[in-house]
Amino acid sequence: MSAAQLYAAVEAGGTKVICGVGSADGGSLETVRIPTTDPGATVRKIVDFFHSARERHGSPEAVGIASFGPLDLDPRSLAYGAITTTPKPGWQGINLPRLLGSALGIPAGINTDVNAAALAEARAGAARGRDAVAYATVGTGIGVGLVSGGKMVHGLGHPEAGHLRVPRHAAHVGFGGICPYHGDCLEGLASGTAIKAAWGASLDQLEPDHPAWEVESHYLAHLCATLIFTVAPEHIIFGGGVMSQTRLFDAIRSKTLSLIGGYVGAWTKEAAAERITGPGCSEPSGLVGAYLIAQAAHQRG
Amino acid sequence: MSAAQLYAAVEAGGTKVICGVGSADGGSLETVRIPTTDPGATVRKIVDFFHSARERHGSPEAVGIASFGPLDLDPRSLAYGAITTTPKPGWQGINLPRLLGSALGIPAGINTDVNAAALAEARAGAARGRDAVAYATVGTGIGVGLVSGGKMVHGLGHPEAGHLRVPRHAAHVGFGGICPYHGDCLEGLASGTAIKAAWGASLDQLEPDHPAWEVESHYLAHLCATLIFTVAPEHIIFGGGVMSQTRLFDAIRSKTLSLIGGYVGAWTKEAAAERITGPGCSEPSGLVGAYLIAQAAHQRG
Repeated sequence: MSAAQLYAAVEAGGTKVICGVGSADGGSLETVRIPTTDPGATVRKIVDFFHSARERHGSPEAVGIASFGPLDLDPRSLAYGAITTTPKPGWQGINLPRLLGSALGIPAGINTDVNAAALAEARAGAARGRDAVAYATVGTGIGVGLVSGGKMVHGLGHPEAGHLRVPRHAAHVGFGGICPYHGDCLEGLASGTAIKAAWGASLDQLEPDHPAWEVESHYLAHLCATLIFTVAPEHIIFGGGVMSQTRLFDAIRSKTLSLIGGYVGAWTKEAAAERITGPGCSEPSGLVGAYLIAQAAHQRG
Repeated sequence: MSAAQLYAAVEAGGTKVICGVGSADGGSLETVRIPTTDPGATVRKIVDFFHSARERHGSPEAVGIASFGPLDLDPRSLAYGAITTTPKPGWQGINLPRLLGSALGIPAGINTDVNAAALAEARAGAARGRDAVAYATVGTGIGVGLVSGGKMVHGLGHPEAGHLRVPRHAAHVGFGGICPYHGDCLEGLASGTAIKAAWGASLDQLEPDHPAWEVESHYLAHLCATLIFTVAPEHIIFGGGVMSQTRLFDAIRSKTLSLIGGYVGAWTKEAAAERITGPGCSEPSGLVGAYLIAQAAHQRG
């Protein structure tokens, strides 16, 4: 048995929940994947897993949750910790830290999945030791988490940079975008869902000279430039299914530098190669972030 | 004599420097305006003022500087505190906190003028008590400062959201923008300089139904929406010469809400009226921010 402290971690996504017992430093001793169905059944399975894991590994000190959102993260709010305006049936108002904290009898903390991933990458991943880090996931949707001054960013709401408006690429003019809220915001134009809607196929099914590649890197470079001009991240990490097409990275880097136009001197070609990368955690960044959230909840008591 | 601690504050702008002796809480006991010329003469006049003010008011504990940039704010850098890639002749590499701190024999701190203004508004102005605040100045240029988690934001560089790319307004299609770096970035399209270049007049010289008003509020609403989606500020404060045209505020608020498209529930019409406003400090926000920077430098020792 390790002397390291034991935590419970929950990465709650729209289609699946990953639960783990372990720590950010030591890794997971055990994980389980649970389908995200109605909240009652899903929470029951999460609690059952942690009860049974307790018999095998001992009692965790706290539980950390990295969740899909939007979340109420205002510490002065009575609904602090609750999922707010999600279209996911039954999940609006569900307060995972309250439910899991009281079922397990331990302190609980929560943040968005992407904020948690940004924190994990800043502490233990590709951006280790950096205090200003962005994490963007480009998959079914687009989510962006931010760490500034070493802390996960929130204010009136939390980062939702997947919904930024970005200048349209000329090769994409006939496409209206698929975001139900905004049509042609970043998620509406550049998520995996948008790519399929625009071109009838995912990137890996399209030839390397298909305009979809150029269009996709254009939008993601606009995300990078917007983040650089707005919050000055030291590192931008891209995860998610679309980004498994790693040829996107070089195109994003060079287009980002063009958009910055030499205005931020620190963003050289070498800096872009080093500071716009994939994730570096040894487990999914969101899960590692959930361990870190648990650790913070434990320290708060 | 007040028992409150005394600080030296410097708001260094491209055309003038305002120096003050006093504190953020108690206000300035005395201020002076010095033209920004070459750095040698300018720094000499700043030092002379503080030496002579010392005879009248006593010795300040520390000096805080709110400066035009870009600045090196990386605490690990040897050039920490220096002005970096400014086009202003002679000012590149000038390290105001080192020069003023050693000339006055007191601790010194620095941040950007707009970050300082955001901090001042968060502590003592229109956003008093809020931890996530943006301050945008719209004048000759456009600058944006950010406070997140109660602290001024920096990372690899600092916020430069004046240079964001924003979707072009249809009534503005023939205008190339005036930013020497990017052409049609926000500053290139919506600064006071850009307004004059596009329409041959400033807003106050144009009829209320002139398209310039619509175009200007379109771009500033895009700035608000980008900030809301990226860093979730609780309050966005606009200052600067262009914003003395206060009719812009209502147009910016309603267009911002349209751009958010209901996605961030907390941004209602009432919230926009309360949270997108002019500044509320009793002295220029940047000068108040400089007192707060001095206070922090004093506490660090």
